[in-house]
Amino acid sequence: MFAVPPTPAMIAFASSWLLAMGVLPWIRVVAHLCAFRFAQRCASGHSGPFRAISGHFGLFRAQKKDPIVDFRLTFGSCLRDQLHVLKGTIAHVAPRAHRATQGAMGSQQQTGLRWGILGAGKIASVFAADAKAAGIRFTAIGARDTGRARAFADRFEIGRAHGSYEALCADPGVDVVYIATPQAFHAEQALLAIAAGKHVLVEKAFTVDAASARRVFAAACEAGVFVLEAMWTRFTPTMIAVRERIARGDIGEVRAITTAHHQKLDLSRAGRHGDPALAGGALLDLGVYAFALALDLLGTPHSIAAAGRVDVAGVDLGAQVLLGYPDAGASLSFSMAHPGPNDASIMGDEGWIHLDAPYFAWTAFQRHDASRPARLVESWEPYAASGMNGTRGMQFQALELERSVAAGLQESPLMPHAHTLAVLEAMDAARAQLR
Amino acid sequence: MFAVPPTPAMIAFASSWLLAMGVLPWIRVVAHLCAFRFAQRCASGHSGPFRAISGHFGLFRAQKKDPIVDFRLTFGSCLRDQLHVLKGTIAHVAPRAHRATQGAMGSQQQTGLRWGILGAGKIASVFAADAKAAGIRFTAIGARDTGRARAFADRFEIGRAHGSYEALCADPGVDVVYIATPQAFHAEQALLAIAAGKHVLVEKAFTVDAASARRVFAAACEAGVFVLEAMWTRFTPTMIAVRERIARGDIGEVRAITTAHHQKLDLSRAGRHGDPALAGGALLDLGVYAFALALDLLGTPHSIAAAGRVDVAGVDLGAQVLLGYPDAGASLSFSMAHPGPNDASIMGDEGWIHLDAPYFAWTAFQRHDASRPARLVESWEPYAASGMNGTRGMQFQALELERSVAAGLQESPLMPHAHTLAVLEAMDAARAQLR
Repeated sequence: MFAVPPTPAMIAFASSWLLAMGVLPWIRVVAHLCAFRFAQRCASGHSGPFRAISGHFGLFRAQKKDPIVDFRLTFGSCLRDQLHVLKGTIAHVAPRAHRATQGAMGSQQQTGLRWGILGAGKIASVFAADAKAAGIRFTAIGARDTGRARAFADRFEIGRAHGSYEALCADPGVDVVYIATPQAFHAEQALLAIAAGKHVLVEKAFTVDAASARRVFAAACEAGVFVLEAMWTRFTPTMIAVRERIARGDIGEVRAITTAHHQKLDLSRAGRHGDPALAGGALLDLGVYAFALALDLLGTPHSIAAAGRVDVAGVDLGAQVLLGYPDAGASLSFSMAHPGPNDASIMGDEGWIHLDAPYFAWTAFQRHDASRPARLVESWEPYAASGMNGTRGMQFQALELERSVAAGLQESPLMPHAHTLAVLEAMDAARAQLR
Repeated sequence: MFAVPPTPAMIAFASSWLLAMGVLPWIRVVAHLCAFRFAQRCASGHSGPFRAISGHFGLFRAQKKDPIVDFRLTFGSCLRDQLHVLKGTIAHVAPRAHRATQGAMGSQQQTGLRWGILGAGKIASVFAADAKAAGIRFTAIGARDTGRARAFADRFEIGRAHGSYEALCADPGVDVVYIATPQAFHAEQALLAIAAGKHVLVEKAFTVDAASARRVFAAACEAGVFVLEAMWTRFTPTMIAVRERIARGDIGEVRAITTAHHQKLDLSRAGRHGDPALAGGALLDLGVYAFALALDLLGTPHSIAAAGRVDVAGVDLGAQVLLGYPDAGASLSFSMAHPGPNDASIMGDEGWIHLDAPYFAWTAFQRHDASRPARLVESWEPYAASGMNGTRGMQFQALELERSVAAGLQESPLMPHAHTLAVLEAMDAARAQLR
């Protein structure tokens, strides 16, 4: 890790290292220096009190736009005493293949971090069971009343049960707070935990919109704590394996992604999904998986088109979304008002990967080549070699947090703040097109 | 069939008939009279020399926009002596369920129609084999040279082999011409056949754009001959069964359609697909199935967004397309430059239908209900009870043409000119958005 912006000397060093590693055929070196972009943003006055910026510089193939090896950089600025302070980190000085294998399946880490859970609902239970199985250490649970917290604590053998979220965040025996409440409350509760100096894992959708997320990241930056969106499917062995195959060229350049996520949920006001006060809606609850997958593999879209239905209470029931890129596209279809398929496909010039239903999980995948008809060349099963049979897969995000904090990072290289923001910005743009 | 525009008396008659049939609960009668829209178009000067217009009037549920029972009407005008002549036909005076069962599987009809094939390529062979098995009577084949035509005639036991398309069209022993050449030539050759007074079945895509199609329909209208786009998947027992299930409410209101069509084809200039001179491109070759399916079930889209790639020669390689409707949406994904899935899903409030890969064929489907997880309630197999094992399914469009001509129609109720035009107009709109 470097605590300063990359200098020409650093770039030269990294370049020569990569050339020595045998990437000599890639003859054109192009450096997109984030510092330059950052300065541009500040100069244009659009940076706001906080703005996470990520960029890359890398080695490019002649006549190809996509870098073969890229360095990812993440910069942030905090509004502190009205001065923008530039913090630069080289988050990845590694070729893609290396990046893809990061966040591997290691469990039972001994980081000493003590976790508290904020919220005692269904998702908190699934997470607690999975994370405990992976060696995560829980010391406290906080719920809206003590009885509820106590019952949860007893079930998962957690030491302290707090009857309020404030008490949980004030607990000096907690280093990390996992926020497992409906998304309408995430921003407020994340700010509460950050103010108490805790690292935070925030259930997805991270916040109800990008503006709220920027406030949370700004506070985390000022407080110097780690914040991660609980986009658990990004950290599963499934997606690590998928990214690895893409990085090594198994399916060629990614050209198209299709995702399907359709469930007829309880949309009465009694349930979370149909309640506008709880920020219920298909976009934040279902669509977030699709946007996160597409943006992980294709980056920030150049164009967004969305069509969908909004009910009388203002809750979006589902949508079809088109994400356009210069050389690729993604078709996302999701709804909580009707049933349908729940799989996804990632297509490249030389093959394609089918993610089994439900794709938004620690799922199986099949890889096909480009012959006609396409030949199945790999069938990947989720639990083999993981040593984690019986878990749902929500532990991997907790392990990613522990690994990142141990490395002194303030954000995950696999799901940096800029990615969470890009997903929320894209969903904001889609929402604006729904009627 | 009525040869005049519907009058208020006709509407009253039809309404009372339907009310007598037990649809009394549907209390609001709304009439969209095509004559009115037609007059509007003429008045606005946008109608051009020919414009097919379709519309509907029907019985509507209170507070619902979608008609439960609809009458479909198709109007056309011909530029004849500079006068627009209005021809009105009530193409469907039938509830949806009746419409869905039209074009059933009957074969070996004895209409006496004599068919000629224009073009001796691959698709002509498949069609000839299927249609012969269904009792279609071929009397002539025309190709660019006599040897090629003779070989085809020998293979399929067809009497006369013509060495030019002109000779085929001039053959007095031919009543119907099936045009099986690359789509760049369809309009010109259809006009040739129409000028000779033949009925025409034109391989899809019907023409390269909507403007060309309008010229063909105008000529057919003037000549009084039948013209049909060979959108063969619309006439298969598969789609008849699918429409029947939708009409009887098995999956509720259709809310979303997703289609996937991905094949890595030969895109060298030697092949048809990559040749701009032959109007090669994914939109016309692959996308046409997706647009035709979506527009069949959801109607003309209210919004169209497309993202895709065009190669240096101007050939579109593939695209993601979003079709927006007030209460539904369709996500279409297709490419001829990379492999991927080839299935489709039709989702409604109460269930969904999965069309097996390749969905653009006489395929199998599975119907699921809306429980969680969705329960398989029907598995439909294509060849059962068809009596047509061993055929690919291209005969059904020929049977539809024979049935329609025998009924004195100038267009198919299942694929009227307005549908072909709507598909081409939507593809024109999508093409304009590809870079």
